[in-house]
Amino acid sequence: MAEEVLISNKQVVLKNYVIGFPQESDLEIIASSIELNVPEAIQDAVLVKNLYLSCDPYMCGCMSKPVGPSIVSSFEPGKPLYGFGVVKVVDSTHPNYKKGDLAWGVPGITAFGGFHEVCSPKKGEYVFVSAASGAIGQIVGQFAKLLGCYVAGSAGSNEKVDMLKNKFRFDEAFYYKEESDLDAALKSRFPEGIDIYFDSVGGKMLDTVLLNMRIRGRIAACGMISQYNLDKPEGLRNLMSIIGKRVHVEGFVTGDFYHLYPKFLELIIPYIKQDEIVYVEDVGEGLESGPTSLIGLFTGRNVGKQLVVGAHE
Amino acid sequence: MAEEVLISNKQVVLKNYVIGFPQESDLEIIASSIELNVPEAIQDAVLVKNLYLSCDPYMCGCMSKPVGPSIVSSFEPGKPLYGFGVVKVVDSTHPNYKKGDLAWGVPGITAFGGFHEVCSPKKGEYVFVSAASGAIGQIVGQFAKLLGCYVAGSAGSNEKVDMLKNKFRFDEAFYYKEESDLDAALKSRFPEGIDIYFDSVGGKMLDTVLLNMRIRGRIAACGMISQYNLDKPEGLRNLMSIIGKRVHVEGFVTGDFYHLYPKFLELIIPYIKQDEIVYVEDVGEGLESGPTSLIGLFTGRNVGKQLVVGAHE
Repeated sequence: MAEEVLISNKQVVLKNYVIGFPQESDLEIIASSIELNVPEAIQDAVLVKNLYLSCDPYMCGCMSKPVGPSIVSSFEPGKPLYGFGVVKVVDSTHPNYKKGDLAWGVPGITAFGGFHEVCSPKKGEYVFVSAASGAIGQIVGQFAKLLGCYVAGSAGSNEKVDMLKNKFRFDEAFYYKEESDLDAALKSRFPEGIDIYFDSVGGKMLDTVLLNMRIRGRIAACGMISQYNLDKPEGLRNLMSIIGKRVHVEGFVTGDFYHLYPKFLELIIPYIKQDEIVYVEDVGEGLESGPTSLIGLFTGRNVGKQLVVGAHE
Repeated sequence: MAEEVLISNKQVVLKNYVIGFPQESDLEIIASSIELNVPEAIQDAVLVKNLYLSCDPYMCGCMSKPVGPSIVSSFEPGKPLYGFGVVKVVDSTHPNYKKGDLAWGVPGITAFGGFHEVCSPKKGEYVFVSAASGAIGQIVGQFAKLLGCYVAGSAGSNEKVDMLKNKFRFDEAFYYKEESDLDAALKSRFPEGIDIYFDSVGGKMLDTVLLNMRIRGRIAACGMISQYNLDKPEGLRNLMSIIGKRVHVEGFVTGDFYHLYPKFLELIIPYIKQDEIVYVEDVGEGLESGPTSLIGLFTGRNVGKQLVVGAHE
């Protein structure tokens, strides 16, 4: 019989469904206590301790009231948020997990699958990444550089632009809010046009990129964060470029690539060990920092991959 | 030495660059005379008689003043229009052609390549075709039916809708101008959603289809005729569907598929002989009908593939 210990347990709870971007006031921290064991009568159950929690933009959509069928399920008002993370098994009645096991995992798999599987990149191609200092963008850019591509990125502050150029070794980067003419900003970085656009923002940036694609260019539609808080998304007017330039646009979600996890780890672990891929994380300490950390994604306050540390072990 | 015969030669000439949709008054018929031989000093030249001339929507773009690099070359004011057709060789100094040869050809290859190569269709899938009674749409729909797909189409008159249902054996068809709610019109024909959309119109139809795509649906971007006459194309707001539904959008032009011509003929000739693929043509008699026939494409007046007969042999 497992030992029975009552401990305090904090949760970040959704107060009400959100319209537009969520605010910190839409979330609250609730404390209760739980027993650290899985009752033996419950088969195949696992109790875990959250070490690292991942804050991801898709969670915005989960806070809205569900309208019709959707591929992401909504959070429920009054119930805790859930997502990806690194967890430690505290108790288990599941045959595949035992106490002390660590389980994955924060997606870098999205960058891997989205770039290598969707974009079919080739050495020497011209690659543009938006939200390039973010969790996915920074990895996509480094994958592209390692493959021998030319890479430019856009980001939401001068600090992030510096990071792209100096830390992540992008060839070019710009602060999109300071560019009065987005088309000119792209043309000056891509005089030959863009072969691959890894899109995490949508809206006006995507529309302008469409004007700058090369023949048989590819657009990986990963996210459209610029649109998540709008009642009515911005209108895109340059779709006609898709025909003449024979552009491929392809949407995907992280779950499409789970089967590639072993291949992903095989590729990325040596790169990380040899410092050929570096990673910037923005870490909130303690679950109390959860609301601030999560909402920061939508105001652009965070730099790099946003995490919340629940516990270090 | 070739016989020297002076004959009258008519041309359809572009008067001035066009803004928006062309009008008949933008074109004029000019008559001159030519000799029916290729001077022997000119190597590898062929003189042809135009039997059938193809009127195609892309020609709208060729009548506009060129802005920057483009994949279609513009017609020149004061010079005759040119395009696809069926021609008979009248004289030749080219080793591959001799007097009396017939040369191709009107594109049905666009329907073949766009559907079979771009859409990767499978038996039982749900296929939607816009401008479905047009030159390309009618063939795409029939290819889809022959493959065992469910096919619905939209068209620009009740006469065309009848033709789709009764002549081309579409499962469903609707007159889009009579549908006050395009989304409802699509949902009633596609309660399970759309696997393949063969798009020749763009704009609002494309935007509404995006809301009705199934997971891993494919959109073949063949044309956007609804947008050709607009200074500023309509804004599309439903691009976000591409991500969640993992939609592929792919643009193409006819020239991408020329290498498939033998494969195309091998497939389509037996079908035509066995009446399993039928074809509706709207034929203008004589080059004088050229301007009316061509402009009719943009007002929706023509029914089926628009041709102009220059001569029957």
